Amino acid sequence: MRNIRLVVEYDGTDFCGWQKQPNIRTVQGEMEEVLSNLLQQKVSLIASGRTDTGVHASAQVVNFSYTGQHSCQTIFNGGNALLPFDVRILSAENVPLDFNSRFSAQAREYKYRITKKPRAIGRQYAWFCPFKIKLSYMEKACPYLIGEQDFKSFCRTGADVTHYQCNMYQVKWNESDDDYIFTVRANRFLHNMVRILVGTFVDIGRGKRKSKDMFTILKSRDRHMAGPTVPAHGLILHRVIYNN
Amino acid sequence: MRNIRLVVEYDGTDFCGWQKQPNIRTVQGEMEEVLSNLLQQKVSLIASGRTDTGVHASAQVVNFSYTGQHSCQTIFNGGNALLPFDVRILSAENVPLDFNSRFSAQAREYKYRITKKPRAIGRQYAWFCPFKIKLSYMEKACPYLIGEQDFKSFCRTGADVTHYQCNMYQVKWNESDDDYIFTVRANRFLHNMVRILVGTFVDIGRGKRKSKDMFTILKSRDRHMAGPTVPAHGLILHRVIYNN
Repeated sequence: MRNIRLVVEYDGTDFCGWQKQPNIRTVQGEMEEVLSNLLQQKVSLIASGRTDTGVHASAQVVNFSYTGQHSCQTIFNGGNALLPFDVRILSAENVPLDFNSRFSAQAREYKYRITKKPRAIGRQYAWFCPFKIKLSYMEKACPYLIGEQDFKSFCRTGADVTHYQCNMYQVKWNESDDDYIFTVRANRFLHNMVRILVGTFVDIGRGKRKSKDMFTILKSRDRHMAGPTVPAHGLILHRVIYNN
Repeated sequence: MRNIRLVVEYDGTDFCGWQKQPNIRTVQGEMEEVLSNLLQQKVSLIASGRTDTGVHASAQVVNFSYTGQHSCQTIFNGGNALLPFDVRILSAENVPLDFNSRFSAQAREYKYRITKKPRAIGRQYAWFCPFKIKLSYMEKACPYLIGEQDFKSFCRTGADVTHYQCNMYQVKWNESDDDYIFTVRANRFLHNMVRILVGTFVDIGRGKRKSKDMFTILKSRDRHMAGPTVPAHGLILHRVIYNN
């Protein structure tokens, strides 16, 4: 028995998210089919986390049990030869049997890209925000989110979770000529959490709310206090961090 | 009579190039239809130059005659509201009547992106080159191309042109972690010229030919001496330069 770890990049545009569902194109569905055919055994992938419809990943981490003899180089080459072009295996390696992409992960890092003007090139990877936003307002709201807190306000209502505690390690905004980039790193994320956070930041950035309102919103534990859920296509699972 | 100048960005993936053709989706075709509807008069666009099927533009320059009263802001907003998302008007302005996007242009600048590893995200905008290439070999071949010379070797055979003289102002390669970027600026370009140049550089970069062979190839005036035509999707019309 071997445990194979893959780092995977995908363009979420034409996928209904990561998680396998019958009769729907998902990343997990495509990958399991290709790898099962390639390795001639049923492959079940464990991912660091699910991504929603339309969300991208530049370095999703997955692993699976494998009892065959093919080298990791063969899995890498064969997988990429058979996979559709919107999924790429970036690396394949043997890891200890106790490695689990989901439970071994220390933190996940997401990025959300807002473009300042409508674009044709790269429009699949950035949300055009039609409002003027001020970086300094958004930056002032970041520190309230740091640390172990209850993020229920930033979770889709009706989500099936046992608790809303997340430990937030990093929250920051960067600005370039064309874009605003939001970077957020935490031990776990709730359903739609990054997109609701960004929607709330945009409300603050455009002056609809004060920077310090972020604190009140967080403490309310009420989804209706937070801003709108911004579109999926600006979001990318950027990195998953493991201890070693 | 007014002369309106637009700067236009497009993602060439789903277009059969710039130039209008019956029953085929082209950038010129889409734009003329939208602008004619919007302005309620027949709009004929003059572009700085044509781009081939699959080639992108981040700043194509076009102009057209207009006899109506709508402001440039209206043309900008209305055009972007009606255009498909893979074409965006970046700016619209009134210019002197003697301005002609094609004949007033001093130089065109193209970029070609080669990605070092297969990618899912941004795969529409970079060609994955399966060979190991050495930047220094390609850099050494650049100076041979500078200046007013005959570029027949780098023109598609059978192209309908009166002469092959081009004045090359800049030819350079840059390398980043993920990509090689080729930048080339000249007063004019022949059909497939940038893509044949890149194909020849790649032959040099992978050691199939010597850097100094670029000189022999250029002087031969023979397309068969040059390298292959690399795929269109790595190419972008990056900038058009005017005197003022």
